[in-house]
Amino acid sequence: MVIIRYLITFSYDGTNYKGLQKLKTGHTIQGVIEDALQKINKGQPVKIYASGRTDAKVHAFCQKAHFDLSLKFNCEQLKKAINNNIPADIYIDKVEVVSADFHARYDVKTKEYVYKINMGAYNPLERNLVYQYNKNLNLIEMERALKFLEGEHDFSYFTSKQETKKDCTRYLLLAHLIKKDDKIMFVFVGTGFLKYQVRNMVAVLMAIGEGKLKSEAIMVILGNKDYNLKVRKAPAVGLYLSNVVY
Amino acid sequence: MVIIRYLITFSYDGTNYKGLQKLKTGHTIQGVIEDALQKINKGQPVKIYASGRTDAKVHAFCQKAHFDLSLKFNCEQLKKAINNNIPADIYIDKVEVVSADFHARYDVKTKEYVYKINMGAYNPLERNLVYQYNKNLNLIEMERALKFLEGEHDFSYFTSKQETKKDCTRYLLLAHLIKKDDKIMFVFVGTGFLKYQVRNMVAVLMAIGEGKLKSEAIMVILGNKDYNLKVRKAPAVGLYLSNVVY
Repeated sequence: MVIIRYLITFSYDGTNYKGLQKLKTGHTIQGVIEDALQKINKGQPVKIYASGRTDAKVHAFCQKAHFDLSLKFNCEQLKKAINNNIPADIYIDKVEVVSADFHARYDVKTKEYVYKINMGAYNPLERNLVYQYNKNLNLIEMERALKFLEGEHDFSYFTSKQETKKDCTRYLLLAHLIKKDDKIMFVFVGTGFLKYQVRNMVAVLMAIGEGKLKSEAIMVILGNKDYNLKVRKAPAVGLYLSNVVY
Repeated sequence: MVIIRYLITFSYDGTNYKGLQKLKTGHTIQGVIEDALQKINKGQPVKIYASGRTDAKVHAFCQKAHFDLSLKFNCEQLKKAINNNIPADIYIDKVEVVSADFHARYDVKTKEYVYKINMGAYNPLERNLVYQYNKNLNLIEMERALKFLEGEHDFSYFTSKQETKKDCTRYLLLAHLIKKDDKIMFVFVGTGFLKYQVRNMVAVLMAIGEGKLKSEAIMVILGNKDYNLKVRKAPAVGLYLSNVVY
């Protein structure tokens, strides 16, 4: 029996999900896609391996996952078949065949996250798509802090306590702030990200923007496993996994 | 007892509503706002008068409505009080005091509607905010048709059958098409609009864009009460009431 490995690129509105990873109870993105694949695979269960998890309510475009099927499909037809069996808040953008040793998680070269903040009037049409924030932010201090974050560092401070026993060194290639009208967007590209890393980085950046911390605080925080995290992670609603590169 | 008339400017995501107008059963925007006002008004019911109805699933920014209260409120505090008592998919942008003879519906000078169409890849994050449409459209023909729509005409053809007994003459000041990347947006400004008029105009424009009708067909349709409507009205999802001017 020939096994074919497929790679899917997909987008989702995370609002109504408990995150990507399948749970014993609760609506998850992995669960919904695996249910669709099981139908397509004549009732046989199919397990998908994503590039990484996303938290409850976090969104994605260009998320990636692989899975194996012993049935050979035309990629365009398989894409249609999956899309016909999943709800409208998830969409398969692309299906491609990859080699049998490809792994959607272990082969990641870089990942990109964006975080969107609306500083203008609250817009009910975007309530699940941006973090609404109406205090003045010093963008210049935030931009300085972003430059301190770039590079290879121990990001222990930015993850949850139980993760800090592991090696928390990651390489952040790019940390940018883009302002357009009343909105700001952070863009982060790195070789890998720790659990809650982006949301905690954004929270510290906001504290710097508000003047509660100086941008130089980043240099004290980086590599300091015992530094006591005083900021609460930024809300999931503004976060998007926006690209995965192999 | 002094009665004060208040005018509210508000926005909503119409996705989860059966439209603006209160119904005996079903979730409506008017119903939700009146419930909030009744709480604020010490349990006494308050009726609101909007600039006009919007259909189920239609969105709005800058919708307007007036209501009367015998209690005097600071406008900013009243805005907060209403917002604290309505769900996150409706937002009161502004509260102001108006004269006792002002009427949010009868005093309308012009209204603006926009209709958004996405011709690019389906985006699950915008599934309730744009009409997804993946056929080629001849934008030049559509733009010609838009110019034929501008001016004072009998728009009977564009409304529902039961409305055509009334006078269907309306003055359309502006009918524009704006293209940006894979999206197109129609903008209509007029002194008044008939029931379903915008959605039916968009449907005819799409038929012209697809080549099923010539742009000149607009001139035959206008003023022709007996012309048989062959297109189905465009979906509510892409429609926004975007301004009301007094």
